[in-house]
Amino acid sequence: MDECVFCKIIKGTIPAEKIYEDDEVLAFLDIKPVNLGHTLVIPKKHYEKMESAPDDVISSVFISSKKLMKSIKEAMSADFVVLSVVGIDVPHFHVHLIPRYFNDKMPVFWPRKEYKEGEKETVADKIRNFL
Amino acid sequence: MDECVFCKIIKGTIPAEKIYEDDEVLAFLDIKPVNLGHTLVIPKKHYEKMESAPDDVISSVFISSKKLMKSIKEAMSADFVVLSVVGIDVPHFHVHLIPRYFNDKMPVFWPRKEYKEGEKETVADKIRNFL
Repeated sequence: MDECVFCKIIKGTIPAEKIYEDDEVLAFLDIKPVNLGHTLVIPKKHYEKMESAPDDVISSVFISSKKLMKSIKEAMSADFVVLSVVGIDVPHFHVHLIPRYFNDKMPVFWPRKEYKEGEKETVADKIRNFL
Repeated sequence: MDECVFCKIIKGTIPAEKIYEDDEVLAFLDIKPVNLGHTLVIPKKHYEKMESAPDDVISSVFISSKKLMKSIKEAMSADFVVLSVVGIDVPHFHVHLIPRYFNDKMPVFWPRKEYKEGEKETVADKIRNFL
């Protein structure tokens, strides 16, 4: 993908602070980190979204992410590491690994809603119908 | 794990609205959803955190998550689906799949920081040292 910024990082035409690399996966620091040490894990082959990546690529990316989570947690003395795939930022499938601290003043999660009586069953039926 | 609420859901001693099930993975609706259709994907075997799950379990959980993302997006007419592993809520490794809408008034991401001159290299070195 000629225009993809992550493909350019893979090719080396845009610099990046690389953390880990193998035949299928590259991990590098996000240049605008949520917290220092925020790392992106991407497949070297271009897939626009997680949904379009084949199963073997999913395995490689998340197995590497698991290993990197441990290193990031230790290296950054983080309280925990959040893994996140958002899918509406750069259109090259990527996993965010974000070191987090109990005192970093960011919410851990979004606010929660409640299901009304009978609504859970309807929603579950809908999703099951699309499986 | 006798006391684990997710293990009880797997055993059937606590009810849940199940979305998908195979030999290794169970997916069910989060009872306190960020948005309706918010689904949890868990391995049937108990691992406290993503970091403690073996590679084959990582593969199964995220390959199933990929398939479920598509169904959730379509069923819930979502603009996008966020995948998230937080690791400090229920101590049984689980993936959140959250249908999101451009107008759902929740932030898509946390605020971003900037690295100071030379800081990126120091941070990358630290993480690489823990790989």
